[in-house]
Amino acid sequence: MKNIAIIGASGYTGAQITSLIHADAGLSVQGLYVSENSLDKGRELSELYPLYSHLPYVLNPLSDDVKAKIVAESDAVVLATEHSVSLELAAWFYQQGLAVFDLSGAYRFADVAQYPKWYGFEHTHPDVLAEAVYGLAEWNAAEIAKTRMIAVPGCYPTASLTALKPLKSLLTSAYPVINAVSGVTGAGRKAHLHTSFCEVSLTPYGVLGHRHQPEIATQLGQEVIFTPHLGNFKRGILATITVQLQPGTTEEQVKQAYEVYDNSPLVTVKHNAFPKVDDVVHTPNCHLGWKYDANSGYLVVASAIDNLMKGAASQGLQCIKIHFNL
Amino acid sequence: MKNIAIIGASGYTGAQITSLIHADAGLSVQGLYVSENSLDKGRELSELYPLYSHLPYVLNPLSDDVKAKIVAESDAVVLATEHSVSLELAAWFYQQGLAVFDLSGAYRFADVAQYPKWYGFEHTHPDVLAEAVYGLAEWNAAEIAKTRMIAVPGCYPTASLTALKPLKSLLTSAYPVINAVSGVTGAGRKAHLHTSFCEVSLTPYGVLGHRHQPEIATQLGQEVIFTPHLGNFKRGILATITVQLQPGTTEEQVKQAYEVYDNSPLVTVKHNAFPKVDDVVHTPNCHLGWKYDANSGYLVVASAIDNLMKGAASQGLQCIKIHFNL
Amino acid sequence: MKNIAIIGASGYTGAQITSLIHADAGLSVQGLYVSENSLDKGRELSELYPLYSHLPYVLNPLSDDVKAKIVAESDAVVLATEHSVSLELAAWFYQQGLAVFDLSGAYRFADVAQYPKWYGFEHTHPDVLAEAVYGLAEWNAAEIAKTRMIAVPGCYPTASLTALKPLKSLLTSAYPVINAVSGVTGAGRKAHLHTSFCEVSLTPYGVLGHRHQPEIATQLGQEVIFTPHLGNFKRGILATITVQLQPGTTEEQVKQAYEVYDNSPLVTVKHNAFPKVDDVVHTPNCHLGWKYDANSGYLVVASAIDNLMKGAASQGLQCIKIHFNL
Amino acid sequence: MKNIAIIGASGYTGAQITSLIHADAGLSVQGLYVSENSLDKGRELSELYPLYSHLPYVLNPLSDDVKAKIVAESDAVVLATEHSVSLELAAWFYQQGLAVFDLSGAYRFADVAQYPKWYGFEHTHPDVLAEAVYGLAEWNAAEIAKTRMIAVPGCYPTASLTALKPLKSLLTSAYPVINAVSGVTGAGRKAHLHTSFCEVSLTPYGVLGHRHQPEIATQLGQEVIFTPHLGNFKRGILATITVQLQPGTTEEQVKQAYEVYDNSPLVTVKHNAFPKVDDVVHTPNCHLGWKYDANSGYLVVASAIDNLMKGAASQGLQCIKIHFNL
Repeated sequence: MKNIAIIGASGYTGAQITSLIHADAGLSVQGLYVSENSLDKGRELSELYPLYSHLPYVLNPLSDDVKAKIVAESDAVVLATEHSVSLELAAWFYQQGLAVFDLSGAYRFADVAQYPKWYGFEHTHPDVLAEAVYGLAEWNAAEIAKTRMIAVPGCYPTASLTALKPLKSLLTSAYPVINAVSGVTGAGRKAHLHTSFCEVSLTPYGVLGHRHQPEIATQLGQEVIFTPHLGNFKRGILATITVQLQPGTTEEQVKQAYEVYDNSPLVTVKHNAFPKVDDVVHTPNCHLGWKYDANSGYLVVASAIDNLMKGAASQGLQCIKIHFNL
Repeated sequence: MKNIAIIGASGYTGAQITSLIHADAGLSVQGLYVSENSLDKGRELSELYPLYSHLPYVLNPLSDDVKAKIVAESDAVVLATEHSVSLELAAWFYQQGLAVFDLSGAYRFADVAQYPKWYGFEHTHPDVLAEAVYGLAEWNAAEIAKTRMIAVPGCYPTASLTALKPLKSLLTSAYPVINAVSGVTGAGRKAHLHTSFCEVSLTPYGVLGHRHQPEIATQLGQEVIFTPHLGNFKRGILATITVQLQPGTTEEQVKQAYEVYDNSPLVTVKHNAFPKVDDVVHTPNCHLGWKYDANSGYLVVASAIDNLMKGAASQGLQCIKIHFNL
Repeated sequence: MKNIAIIGASGYTGAQITSLIHADAGLSVQGLYVSENSLDKGRELSELYPLYSHLPYVLNPLSDDVKAKIVAESDAVVLATEHSVSLELAAWFYQQGLAVFDLSGAYRFADVAQYPKWYGFEHTHPDVLAEAVYGLAEWNAAEIAKTRMIAVPGCYPTASLTALKPLKSLLTSAYPVINAVSGVTGAGRKAHLHTSFCEVSLTPYGVLGHRHQPEIATQLGQEVIFTPHLGNFKRGILATITVQLQPGTTEEQVKQAYEVYDNSPLVTVKHNAFPKVDDVVHTPNCHLGWKYDANSGYLVVASAIDNLMKGAASQGLQCIKIHFNL
Repeated sequence: MKNIAIIGASGYTGAQITSLIHADAGLSVQGLYVSENSLDKGRELSELYPLYSHLPYVLNPLSDDVKAKIVAESDAVVLATEHSVSLELAAWFYQQGLAVFDLSGAYRFADVAQYPKWYGFEHTHPDVLAEAVYGLAEWNAAEIAKTRMIAVPGCYPTASLTALKPLKSLLTSAYPVINAVSGVTGAGRKAHLHTSFCEVSLTPYGVLGHRHQPEIATQLGQEVIFTPHLGNFKRGILATITVQLQPGTTEEQVKQAYEVYDNSPLVTVKHNAFPKVDDVVHTPNCHLGWKYDANSGYLVVASAIDNLMKGAASQGLQCIKIHFNL
């Protein structure tokens, strides 16, 4: 039984991973934590989320004493905190010897030069960053098992990379075009005008400048065009990706490429049939569907995940279970 | 051609009535105004509302000079402001001789004793209040034509009273039970957690304590139970109302009661067929449907309106046109 | 390990209970069945429902041979079939000695006179009907344990009765007024114009004539007014109920009445706080919230469940586990 | 005053254009028609569409006598009929001397070879087809004024071409990638499982094989990749388009290209700001937003329209008014 502390548990992602860890027979929840300034400190999680009315946890403020107690009692911490908060907490807990599963972006780029540009801060822990592995569970299991510092991927990159990585050797130099639509939970729980009910309606944002573009490009090893959209649904992402394959590529080669997932129970691949967002919502699954036009050389692949699950919490859980060999 | 100034034009209701007045051949828009502290001052309405991309108006700050200019140039002001703001502005413009169409609650109760309880302020202008008429357009046209101080009804009261007033003489002393569901625009444009996209889901609120309960009861002349709900749609209200009719009441009597609307083009009444919210959205219409069980004496009537239109802006326009005989 | 056959597994309810039985450590799925004429026979459940991509079951046609095999191999059958189909299948399997959990309405009324009126057929198995118990899990556990013929309640009755039964001794003769809004899955999977995406918008239906009205009245022991509505969401029911309590009833008495659920983990009761539909969707929970006005004697209680879960499949599972003492 | 007959008026598009023609001061509705076999014949439009409760029209069966009467009384017919029905009706009315505004696809391709492939029929009226002009109102006004046979464009092509045509001279040979999401009204009014409320969830369809792909390609003069999606909303289309511009293209050149719409009141163009579907719903407007990355040469442009309005009915009205110089 591994004991896990969850920091930043008041947000959508933190609450979701709490429910998953709570339900897992091999794991226990050491405690839930929020920042010392949080208005939610001292409240029960079920008060914020009646959906989790069966979860008996209080949101504790993360004082120094509490941090010491976490180190003493836990095998790992999950960080569902802001990028800049994760930056420091991840390093500290890592240095205390705990395994760290960071759901933020603070350790996703290996290259420190990317952080000022995309996250607005200098990376203050390059030594810890050097240990970090990108927690794309179906692809990096061996490394996730070995290191204690796991940067769980973002939601858009998970959807996109799961679809694109099998095709890597078939791509030309033309940029894959990724159009993705995310449910509104992807924007977090805080109230903003642009995510208020009456304002939400399908629209692109972060066009030609979203921080998940370089995350995808880095992990794929190829530049991409990435256009995210806000959709009028709560959970889920659909990424529709158009790529040009090398001249002469056959449908059979594409099929073989996707056979990489034959032993991945959470990834379903269909040929000439396409996924719907609601078929993966509240699940840890990724559904892929593709079609290839050998004449033009263009392939369209669509990828659907639940942004809070496979795009954050359930992939975090996958990483935890891989790491602890559960 | 009557010239109308619209104050509080940055909110959902203000923007809606601007579009209606702009489109009306007999009316012109003198100007749009927001408070001097508003972050929206100086912006174009179409910047806040791309939906109104064809409306060429700027949101001007309401300084004292501007108020004098409004008086000089306008026949009427529309107030789409907070209750406490309307309280003062309505009295001032009324005293300057303009017609005032107030979409807030500041002049809806004739009894000053109600304001501290339901709106949290003492009514500072009982003399102006004494002139005010309740702008339920199908019922109070004669008075709307005569006075310059019109308190346009709230959205729930409009839906409820349009359904209930024809039945008044048939009711017993048992309280009508009004269950109403409003779209989220009813909560206004400001960002709040409870109206953020991910948090909205059908739920009651203001149970046994909403300020529209006494507004309905006063105008109906009978106590009612009123339970509002927030629904997962942007616009519209459906009020489903259960009443007990006097013993011996016949279906024919109910039919006759609703014939009061035979010459009201905006009110449609159906027997044994019920309205849908989307059939009135973006329209000035009220759709009623009723069924009566003579055995038990119970009648159910449902009433659908667009909360921003018949429940605010388009009823405001009705009042303006009645008042100016357009 | 109890082995369960599921008949009518291609519908929303049948698929849902399949997923629950599949996931339950004490139960196994003997097989899934559809009618011999079904267009879905021979298809995989996961083909109809990609959501259940991990469920390895085929929809078999229910021939006579197959029925014999079910009897030989199963401890119980779940019927997620049309009322008239359940009528016969339930009796047959019951007479073969299996436990029968019927999710249809064919055995919910003890009084055979009700069936022609509300379901359009004469009840052909009054002897089996005499054995049937109404499977409202929190209330009838002792009887569910004893009989092999369980009529699992409808979705609206479950939401309504869970809220109303604790108040029974406090009610006056005035009819409780139940306004309920159901998600569209309540109408089943078959395509109809009124449940097509573009036509759905909040509206009442079955006014003063829905078959769940007498089901609620019978189980409560008091007439009620019941007005169902179709809401623009997929899953969930919210029932908002207005009742008059006996003169002199105190808030404390209401509190005590709801303490009946203190040991019911699936029912949560809140005072002066009200449930949201989405907080119970995809869960087996019922959330209740109530407020009482001692002056007027009126109480409003709201009840939220997932119509496919607590309103059908998960309550079916509760009954199975109570019956088999799992 | 031009008198217009509307055939196929029972569908979403036919009802929408009826409401527009009814409201237009320069036009009158000669009558509404459905096929002689239609279940809707003899019903009032307002019975099918309570939204149009103020429209006083009956759906008449289209007999031969009726056709003669239409010819005698009308200046034009609007065809909101199935492609294969329009094919014959358009030719017949055209030959009788009426102006024909066809909202179907039967006259959109100049090349008869396309029809068997994309519509499943041989084009039986190549002579009439030779007269037909593609009714993209902002681009083909001169021809719309001259011919009596106008093929009003499909919804996806209107959204896509309005965005792409200004860029034509700046494109490379790389295929523009069009990802578009349509509201469910785009699928018509008939009940189907895939458009039933519970089944709708964002998903691609018609991938690498939708009939609007060659329509767009033909009108643009360049092949494109077009991937349509069904979205969980009733009305509206958002097309997000990624193109590669010729090396050395400047932002200024793109700006100038879009100045083609400076005198088009229904098309709004924004730089670095992107449209939302709900900002055009129920309007005749097209909102465009674009961003260009001069380093990579990629441009993303998004285009939003209401599929039933600018994508069908209101563009039909534009064509009528252009043709009759109203």
